[in-house]
Amino acid sequence: MRMAELSRQSGVPTATIKYYLREGLLPGGETTAPNQAQYGREHLDRLSLIRALRETAGLSISTIGRVLTAMDDYRPGDSPEHLTIAVAEMSEPLTIPDDETDDYARAREDLQQLIHELGWHVDTTSPGYDDAIRSIVALHRYLPGLVTDPGQLRPYGEAVRTLANTEIPADYDPAADPAATLRFSVLGTALFEPLILALRKLAHVDRIRTTPAATWAKR
Amino acid sequence: MRMAELSRQSGVPTATIKYYLREGLLPGGETTAPNQAQYGREHLDRLSLIRALRETAGLSISTIGRVLTAMDDYRPGDSPEHLTIAVAEMSEPLTIPDDETDDYARAREDLQQLIHELGWHVDTTSPGYDDAIRSIVALHRYLPGLVTDPGQLRPYGEAVRTLANTEIPADYDPAADPAATLRFSVLGTALFEPLILALRKLAHVDRIRTTPAATWAKR
Repeated sequence: MRMAELSRQSGVPTATIKYYLREGLLPGGETTAPNQAQYGREHLDRLSLIRALRETAGLSISTIGRVLTAMDDYRPGDSPEHLTIAVAEMSEPLTIPDDETDDYARAREDLQQLIHELGWHVDTTSPGYDDAIRSIVALHRYLPGLVTDPGQLRPYGEAVRTLANTEIPADYDPAADPAATLRFSVLGTALFEPLILALRKLAHVDRIRTTPAATWAKR
Repeated sequence: MRMAELSRQSGVPTATIKYYLREGLLPGGETTAPNQAQYGREHLDRLSLIRALRETAGLSISTIGRVLTAMDDYRPGDSPEHLTIAVAEMSEPLTIPDDETDDYARAREDLQQLIHELGWHVDTTSPGYDDAIRSIVALHRYLPGLVTDPGQLRPYGEAVRTLANTEIPADYDPAADPAATLRFSVLGTALFEPLILALRKLAHVDRIRTTPAATWAKR
C-alpha cells in the first residue's frame, strides 16, 4: 500500500509516519519508483506498537527507539535472555540524584535481602533491578521511618509474583515464536502497568470506605 | 531562614525555588524587609514533597500544582472523602483517542463486572476509575484477544487488594491527623508505584528462568 493508505489504515497522520521514518522507528517501504514506496503488514504492526507505547505507557520517542532496536536485534538462536533486553529498555529511570551514596548502599542491601527471602533467580543486570533500587532510595528519603525493615517490602514481591505466575504460564515457551514473545513481553509490561496502578487506587478507596475507621465518615 | 539557607537545607537551587514561588507551588515567605523574606519548616517540607513527586513519580509541574492545591484545599471538618482528591489529581491520563466509543463502553462493562466480583465500594468518581477504563481500552485495542473475559483481570484486583490491606491498617483513622494523612496518601501512592512496577519486572525474570520451559535456555 502507499503512504496515504498506510496512514488511513493505521490512523497515524502522514506527517507523523514521516517523522517515524526519519527517526528510524519505522523501516522504509519498498521503493517501487522514485519518490514512491510500498508499505505492508509489518509497517501496520509497527505503527500499532509505537502507538500503544506512546499512548499508554507514555514512553518518549527516544525510549521507544531503544525498545524497537532491542526487539529488532533479537535473532532466532540468540539466548532467550535477550528477550528481556527490550523490556529493560522501557524504564525511564527515576532522576533521584545519587548524591548520598549511603542511601544507595542501604537500598541495595534491602533489595538483596528481599530477593533472597523470595528466592528469586534474578541478578543485578535484570530488568527492574536498578529501578527497584531507586524506588527504595526514594522511600527512605521521602517517607523516612516508614520502611525500617526490608520484610515490609515482601508483600509487594509476593503480590507481583502471584501476577507473574498468572501472566507467564508454566508451559510458556518463549523460544517457540520469538517475535510474538517480544511483542507480548513489551506490550504486556506496558499495558498492564497503568491498570495495576489504577486498580491499586480503587482498592485504597474501597479499603478506606470499609475499614472500621470509616465511622469517621459519619462524624 | 533566608532564601540561600532554604536552598542549602533543601538541596533545591535558588533559581528553582524562585520558579516554584512564581508558579504558586511554594507559598511566599514572611516579608521582613523590602526584597527580603523569611522561610520556615513548612517551606522545607513543601520542597521535599515537590522533589519527591518530581524525581520519583515524574509528575509535571502543572500536575504537582493540582495535587498541592487539592492538599491545601482540605479543611479539618471536610468529609474525609476529600482526602482522595489529591491522589486523584496525580494521574496523568493516558492519551488514547476516544475515537471508537464501543471500546470505551465495553471497557466500562468489564470494569463494572470486575468491581462487582471483587465487592469493592467504589464509584465512577473514585481515583483510578477513569485510568482503569483507559487501561482496559488499551488492552483490548493493542493486545486484542488476550483479555476476552473480565475474570482475567481479577488476579490484578486481588493482588492490589492484598497490598491495600497491608498499606491501610484496619485501625487506620485518616481523620486523626489530616495533614499527615494527605502527605502519606500522596507520597505512599507515588513512591510505591515505581517499586511495584520494578518488582513485577524482576518477578517476570524469575518466572521465565524457573519455569520448565527454561530448558530452552540450554538449547
